[in-house]
Amino acid sequence: MTNNRFDAERITRITITPVAFHDPPLLNAVGVHERWALRSIVQLTTESGITGLGESYGDEAHLRRLRHGADALIGADVFAVNSFRPLIRQALAADSGVGGHGMSGMVTGSSTEDRVLSPFDVAALDVQGKILRRPVTDLLGGAVRAAVPFSGYLFYKWAAHPGADGDIWGEALTTAGIVEQAKTMVADYGFDALKLKGGVRPPDEECAAIEALRAEFPDMPLRLDPNAAWTVQTSIEIGERLNGVLEYLEDPTPGLTGMAEVRRKAPMPLATNMCVVSFDDIAPAVDAGSVDIILSDHHFWGGLRRSQSLAAITETFDLGLSMHSNSHLGISLAAMVHLAAATPRLDYACDTHWPWKDPAEDVVVPGTLEFSDGAVPVPTGAGLGVELDEDALGRLHEQYVRCGQRDRDDTGYMQSIEPDFRPVTPRW
Amino acid sequence: MTNNRFDAERITRITITPVAFHDPPLLNAVGVHERWALRSIVQLTTESGITGLGESYGDEAHLRRLRHGADALIGADVFAVNSFRPLIRQALAADSGVGGHGMSGMVTGSSTEDRVLSPFDVAALDVQGKILRRPVTDLLGGAVRAAVPFSGYLFYKWAAHPGADGDIWGEALTTAGIVEQAKTMVADYGFDALKLKGGVRPPDEECAAIEALRAEFPDMPLRLDPNAAWTVQTSIEIGERLNGVLEYLEDPTPGLTGMAEVRRKAPMPLATNMCVVSFDDIAPAVDAGSVDIILSDHHFWGGLRRSQSLAAITETFDLGLSMHSNSHLGISLAAMVHLAAATPRLDYACDTHWPWKDPAEDVVVPGTLEFSDGAVPVPTGAGLGVELDEDALGRLHEQYVRCGQRDRDDTGYMQSIEPDFRPVTPRW
Repeated sequence: MTNNRFDAERITRITITPVAFHDPPLLNAVGVHERWALRSIVQLTTESGITGLGESYGDEAHLRRLRHGADALIGADVFAVNSFRPLIRQALAADSGVGGHGMSGMVTGSSTEDRVLSPFDVAALDVQGKILRRPVTDLLGGAVRAAVPFSGYLFYKWAAHPGADGDIWGEALTTAGIVEQAKTMVADYGFDALKLKGGVRPPDEECAAIEALRAEFPDMPLRLDPNAAWTVQTSIEIGERLNGVLEYLEDPTPGLTGMAEVRRKAPMPLATNMCVVSFDDIAPAVDAGSVDIILSDHHFWGGLRRSQSLAAITETFDLGLSMHSNSHLGISLAAMVHLAAATPRLDYACDTHWPWKDPAEDVVVPGTLEFSDGAVPVPTGAGLGVELDEDALGRLHEQYVRCGQRDRDDTGYMQSIEPDFRPVTPRW
Repeated sequence: MTNNRFDAERITRITITPVAFHDPPLLNAVGVHERWALRSIVQLTTESGITGLGESYGDEAHLRRLRHGADALIGADVFAVNSFRPLIRQALAADSGVGGHGMSGMVTGSSTEDRVLSPFDVAALDVQGKILRRPVTDLLGGAVRAAVPFSGYLFYKWAAHPGADGDIWGEALTTAGIVEQAKTMVADYGFDALKLKGGVRPPDEECAAIEALRAEFPDMPLRLDPNAAWTVQTSIEIGERLNGVLEYLEDPTPGLTGMAEVRRKAPMPLATNMCVVSFDDIAPAVDAGSVDIILSDHHFWGGLRRSQSLAAITETFDLGLSMHSNSHLGISLAAMVHLAAATPRLDYACDTHWPWKDPAEDVVVPGTLEFSDGAVPVPTGAGLGVELDEDALGRLHEQYVRCGQRDRDDTGYMQSIEPDFRPVTPRW
């Protein structure tokens, strides 16, 4: 066995398919979710005919970058993921396009290169697992937990998109509406932690909602994420008011300096997925003392292996770690679960938008990813352990073609309904 | 393929064999290498009869800890390396022994847990690679280079151990001797960089040796490692004198604070394998600004996967990275080569003591690991790509049994020959 030379397993084809799925009118600091959530589905095939799956944002500029990245990876060895990043860097050097970060202006400083790398890294690991007949967790050092706990993600929301039928969740614009939403979500999914997307109502009102959640769920860890909608002063005041109530406060105010100011006075840990969004942000954040917890996200931290590097960094610098989410489909959920399962120190239940998606709309064959007691058991099949439903992919791509949306624009959509809306940060 | 449940591949047996091989009388700041270098050879076998190899220090206290660690890993899944560390931590909690760090007092702050974890991590990856029929590099994200460049490691040395025959290298106690040694080593191995182990002769003399090497090899990167034998003041003076001559200066003075003082004034980068030797040292070193380059070493940084984490950290904090070496055998050389090949940003040629070992003495079957132009091509077989020579293992274990040495003690050995010797740090 000693001197066999292993043939490379070359990447021969990469297909990138934009898809759209229905999204409820969820409110946030910069506007409201549009009718359709856009995603891109990556199918990466190697010379022996094995195909791996990846999923990323669906904005047009990002799709164009993904195609540049895909072109650069044709011919690369699917086991040589360490070499993908320089290839992608080179491919993107010619792309001067801006925008398309898939997060509607809320996160713009993340590394373009890592956002492009991510779905290819995931798809390559899926292929590797299929060839080696092992789950992706094993390629990441093995699962340290059999299921990954998630938190219920509560949103202020309208009953329906203008002119459309309502969704099953109904309106939630008051404290009572949020508590009702929480009760339903906990009953349906068994979540053991809750997060409220804030930055929508005045801080006093969002505080009252958190206090009402505490009264309803006396032992449930609670988090509040106003998406940098508050000033430093407001953040400190709310921090003091919610002392002993919040497990953590997420991105109350913009920027590393402002966050550091809040952190010196707020009694609870501060989390972020807005001011530390790339490896370049880490050293300045450590230096300024801006945050306690980084909410990782393999979609903008360069895939699963680089997200493991982030985990090693947070452990080394005594920072907490959890996981951020955007609206996503089953390929991303599978990737998130494999990553989280293979991350020894994961300090808080992860975020997911999963409950907001119509269960009938996905690109993976149902059955592999199921919530039980607020957690998703790690898929045990080879690779990611999920199978693409080609018909469903076709249907969701048809929806993309017909829907007319090409970029995520929560602000523009909100202004089309409420013309006076301005995405001011901080607002209060 | 979607829902197959993969059976764990359980570890059923771990054998730890102490070995001894001949070591020349190489001088350093704390004494002189003894007649025998001690190592431990780990053979880790799984339920389907696959065996993987690891190598570590051979000191008695370390051997005892390795045995505790081995006991704790029996029954663990060989793919679940993420779970090894907590198992080892628990196993070591009962061990209150001190010492046995394998580095003769030069590095004592490194993590005991990571030193014990290391050979098991390597052996598990070797097994994984053999099962999956891929080289270890592929399990680390793939090789980014086909061969790993090393530097020639020059030592002041005696012609022979007292009362013994001389070795092929002869005496090197003067600048002329060092230059002669360098010429032979470069001619034999093709090294493109040279390091002088300093801290042995007065700083002026070691400076003169470096200057003579520069004259002999005008384009060769040169490094000097006095192992913290100098004061801050001396370090700054020598730094100024060797401005433009040294590629980097390694551990001129002890401690994070002293190193930071030198770093503010010395013109060249400062490297370390003495003041940053565990993950716990990194944040204080970054905060104090103590070093430019970390010399990693999978033997004390917890194996190959955790050394990759270290590489991600150095990249994130804009630190350079290279690799430290102790006297070692072929299993460690193979592991070092796989790791270095799969480390995208490796800034300097790695260290190795390889030329100081009798080529006839090793535990691996010859032929897989060969130097060419100062570099070792990455073994391409499954796993580490090296094969254990059971007879050679038996011979080297016999040497261990008979030699009587049980711990590395450069200082004690030196004092047995020169009773007035004191390992004073800093000395000059």
